[in-house]
This record gives sequence, structure tokens and C-alpha cells, in this order.
Amino acid sequence: MTASSLLGLHRVQVPTGALPQAAERLDDSPVVGADEVRLRIERLNLDAASFCQLQTKHGGDGEAVRREVLDIVASRGKLQNPVTGSGGMLVGVVDEVGPGSPLGLTVGARVATLVSLSLTPLRITDGLARWDGRSERVPAEGHAILFGRSIAAVLPDDLPAELAMAVLDVCGAPALTARVVRGYDRPRVAVIGGAGKSGSLSLAAARRSGADRTVGIVPVRHEAELLEEAALADGVRLADARDPVALAQAVEDGLAGPADVTVVCVDVPGCEHGAILSTADGGTVVFFSMATSFSAAALGAEGLAADVTMLIGNGYLPGHADYAMDLLRTVPAVRALFEARIAH
Amino acid sequence: MTASSLLGLHRVQVPTGALPQAAERLDDSPVVGADEVRLRIERLNLDAASFCQLQTKHGGDGEAVRREVLDIVASRGKLQNPVTGSGGMLVGVVDEVGPGSPLGLTVGARVATLVSLSLTPLRITDGLARWDGRSERVPAEGHAILFGRSIAAVLPDDLPAELAMAVLDVCGAPALTARVVRGYDRPRVAVIGGAGKSGSLSLAAARRSGADRTVGIVPVRHEAELLEEAALADGVRLADARDPVALAQAVEDGLAGPADVTVVCVDVPGCEHGAILSTADGGTVVFFSMATSFSAAALGAEGLAADVTMLIGNGYLPGHADYAMDLLRTVPAVRALFEARIAH
Repeated sequence: MTASSLLGLHRVQVPTGALPQAAERLDDSPVVGADEVRLRIERLNLDAASFCQLQTKHGGDGEAVRREVLDIVASRGKLQNPVTGSGGMLVGVVDEVGPGSPLGLTVGARVATLVSLSLTPLRITDGLARWDGRSERVPAEGHAILFGRSIAAVLPDDLPAELAMAVLDVCGAPALTARVVRGYDRPRVAVIGGAGKSGSLSLAAARRSGADRTVGIVPVRHEAELLEEAALADGVRLADARDPVALAQAVEDGLAGPADVTVVCVDVPGCEHGAILSTADGGTVVFFSMATSFSAAALGAEGLAADVTMLIGNGYLPGHADYAMDLLRTVPAVRALFEARIAH
Repeated sequence: MTASSLLGLHRVQVPTGALPQAAERLDDSPVVGADEVRLRIERLNLDAASFCQLQTKHGGDGEAVRREVLDIVASRGKLQNPVTGSGGMLVGVVDEVGPGSPLGLTVGARVATLVSLSLTPLRITDGLARWDGRSERVPAEGHAILFGRSIAAVLPDDLPAELAMAVLDVCGAPALTARVVRGYDRPRVAVIGGAGKSGSLSLAAARRSGADRTVGIVPVRHEAELLEEAALADGVRLADARDPVALAQAVEDGLAGPADVTVVCVDVPGCEHGAILSTADGGTVVFFSMATSFSAAALGAEGLAADVTMLIGNGYLPGHADYAMDLLRTVPAVRALFEARIAH
């Protein structure tokens, strides 16, 4: 077992030397290497940015979306949207464990993967026959491979799998939000897209981590009502996050000033400038949206002469899954929002 | 004068409500608003990512590059590469100052703009007749507009304009590197692309800010020799930054361990995973390259289970121009590298 094997480099077919996430094509063979684990897939979850891109591209034609996802997996050996670069996650059952796997999984355990599908070798064997292409939740049969350095969480017994999976899918956001908020003294925190999965968890994490005041920004009246009822934020405001001046005004209004920490959880392009403009000098913007443009953020801050720290939202922090699960278990409003979202 | 006017929103023609950097088209009229400043252009500097993209696209055909730059400026009212999203900077002479401009500039002053050309209203009047399309330095005639919140530095008398401009173009990098390095106790620092403009300044900034050990990574033997002679880094190593395993090995070799702070200054795509893999848990990666992919970085860190902080390199920090100029004046090796670069 070598470092390169733990990272999955031996599965990369094209181009040579790339890491699995950057690869064009992975080897999707079911034969398990010494430090690998094979999962029997139960379901896939497309990430929001990828699903929205496919929906938009095909004008809501579910059959066309289904065919494209099958094509992607067949041609790339992994589920990575070629436009957004993103993937999603999966739930499956451990089928075989290589003798040197460091993951501590046992055959028969039901797990969710916490590394993106964009780097996970994957083969689909049922043609996604049980999926209509109209939801990001994809019942599927086939297998997936975990590397030595992959991360998978055994699904908890006390929570429905779908609920646990929805939380695990975004569990990096509350953990990183908590870390950033703790770096300030009683900061004001704005969460753009506060009624969504990562948004609601981030609001709960900000409050628990010492935020002085929080505001959730949402795009439509229905979400504002949901978030107000949940009382996860001290204030709720309506704004189109793609309109920089309107967004900054909504944040300022909700916090009685600009934010010290702004967390971007909306998966639409064009929110960079508004997030920067909403943030006080010396503040931090955390971008979790996969629709974030690096150059728009970098040049936007420069163009606005804004002294803000801008973080690329890393989906991994030690203990992130446990932290998010704990928020779900102990903050009833978070659980209610997640359950309502799953029911729809 | 309003906040929106200071940001230049009144110059945005398409789409309405966008900030100038995100706009498709700006109004390039020479008529100066109350809080604006008009410059007479002397020369433009294309940013490295934009120039490389244009060079590659046109296979080194300078005449085609020249025509495309003219087309971009004529159709967009600003110089923003539609592929990279980036622009560059300019040197010019102050021609007219609106009565309410907060920039403190006087007519006749020679200045360099520190906000990107990607958001600066611009009109070219000489067809770029003195440019052969083969260098990022573009002699040009025409005018540009500064907004109330734009940033421009008066060129120092004691330095050649070209030298000052080359430094100002990348002055955000050493300032942010210094801030990040000071956040650690005697960190080990790797600068990927250490022999370049932002790279050499970042190495000097890291050393001055308390780095325990620094390594500069370069792609070719010639640059390694330059950087070794300059002695700006404690170690110099050769590696292709697009090869994650090779890059991490070179950093580890140069620092006797992974980096606490990794600074990415190479304008080629695909360096995200190598930078992450080169960085210790708890460390920070600062991405200055405009070729950085947000999703590759975010998913890469998750896929590698790497607990690293990833910063989008903000080109603005208070005092950044003065800090970079001071490095140039007080570190002879930095000045020598810049002068050699300009001479070629």
C-alpha cells in the first residue's frame, strides 16, 4: 500500500498521473484492491449544482436527464457533471473489504459516502430504470469503490436513511461556518440561502458558535415564511442574491450593519459580488456554492477595494459528520426543515 | 454621489443592476461624472492568464491576438477576456477630475490602476497600432474612467514606470502572503511558481513575515537557476505543478515536510490538487492564479480528506502597493528578478 494507492491513483485511466477527481476516466472494475472497499449502490444523490445544470440544459425533460447521467457514468467511470465539475454522494451497503483497508468498515454496513461522486469509481447496472430524472435522488443498482483515504459514514440507527443522507451531503458547511464564526468576537453573520440544507445548518452552527446576530437571506416569500417559522435566524430578509446592491441592502437591514461573516449557500452563479459587498472590512466570506466563480470573486473584491477574506468552502473538516448530525438531533427546527424538504 | 455611483453602477449598460466587473458591456463615454476621473492611456498590461489564453487560442499569431483585444474592448467597453474573466491594469495620465472624486488625484499625475481592467470603462483610439500582439505590455492611446471606489497609485519618481507597474500588477500577493504567514508560528512556506512576479514577491514577503523555511517550486531548469541565484527561498525545487504527486514530493523534499502555507502563483489550470496535497493538515493554501477552478479546489480537498483552509487570493489589502514597493526597494534580489523579466 502506497500513498498513491490510498488516493486512488491506480484507478485513473486518463490522463495518467491525475488525481481521481481531475481524471477524465476512472477504472470502474468491481475487483477490490488491497486497500479498497466495494459498495453495492442503493441510491445516488446528485449535487444541487449538477442537477440544476442538467435540468436547465434539457428543459426539464427527465428522460433526457436520465440518459445523460447514464452516459456520463458509462463514459467516465464516475458521476461527474462535465459542466459543473461536481458530483454528489451515494448510499450503499458494504460488499467487500480489502485486507488492508484503513476505513474500519464491515461487510453489510450501510454507509453514505462523504467524498464526492466526482472521484468515486462507479458502475450502474440497472439503467436507472427506477428514476424519472426529475429529482436529485436517484435509486440505482451497481457498485462503487472507496479508496483508503475516502470517507464514508455508517448511517445512524436512530434516523431515517434519507434524512441522514441529506445532512451528510452538506455536513462540511456547518463545521466550517462554526470554525470561522469562532474566529470572531460575537460576529454578525449572514447566510445567503438560509432556508436550504446547508443554509439552515449553517445558521444553527453560527448561533451555537457565538454569533451576536444572524440573518438568513432567501429568494422567495415561501422560503421566508419557512425560515421565520423555524426561528433559526434572528432576522429573515428577501433578496435576489445575484443583485449585489439589493443583497447588501438586505443584509445591512437584517443585521443593522454589514456582516462580519457571510456564508454563501445558494447554487446559482453570480452571487460573488453581492456577498463581498455585504461583508464588512476585515470580515470573511465563505463560498459553499459550487456555482462560485473563482475569478469573479477575486476580481470582484479587488474591484470593490474590499478587505475581506474569501474562503473556498472545503467539504471536509475532522468531525464534520458528527457535528452536523448533532445539530440535526438537538435543534428541532433544523430537523423540521430537513423533513419538510425530504417530504416534497 | 451615492454608493452605487461610487461603484460605477451608472456605467453598466448590460445587464442592468450588475456591478461593472460582472457586466457584459460598460458605457465608455469620456464625459466625466461628478465622482469620476478620466485617464489618458499610455499603456495597458494584459494579465498573464488572459494573455496566455489569447496566445494559445491564436497559436501565437500576434496580429490575431491584437484584433481580438480590439474587438473585446470595442464590444464590451472594457478589457475583460471572456474566457478567463480577467483583465489587467493600465498606466495613464490624469486628464480630468470630477469635482466630487474622493481619489485625491490631480490633473497631470501619472498613475497605474490597481483595479482590474475587467471593470474599468475603456476606449482605444489608435487601433493598438504600436503593439505586435506578442507581449502582455500594450502601448495604447485612448481613455479610461476611474470610479470613486477605484484604486490608482501615483507612480513613484525613483523607479522606472515599467518596473513600478510590474510590481503594482501583483501587489496583492505579497500583502496577503504576509498576513497569512503571520497567522502561524514560524511556518514552512511553499510558493508554487516562485520565480515569477507574484511568486518572488511572495517568497520575500514570507521570509520577512516570519517563515521558518521557504521553498520555491519552478517548472524549468532556467527558472530554478534564476531563483537559486536570487537566494529568495531557502530551497528551490523543480516540479510540474499539474502533477499532484510530483508537486507534493518536491515541496516535502524542499521543506523537510509538508507546507503550513502554500501559495499558488502559476497561471496554468490544474494546480489545485497538488497544492492541497502539498499542505499539512491545519495549513492554508492561497490561490492567486486566475486559472484556479473553484470546484476543483473544493472537491479536491474533500476528496483528499484534507483539513486545509483555502483562500481566494484577494487582489486588495490596505497598504498593498506600499508593501510591495518596499519589498522591491529593500530586497535587491527581488528588484533584480523584476528587471531581468522586464528586459526580456
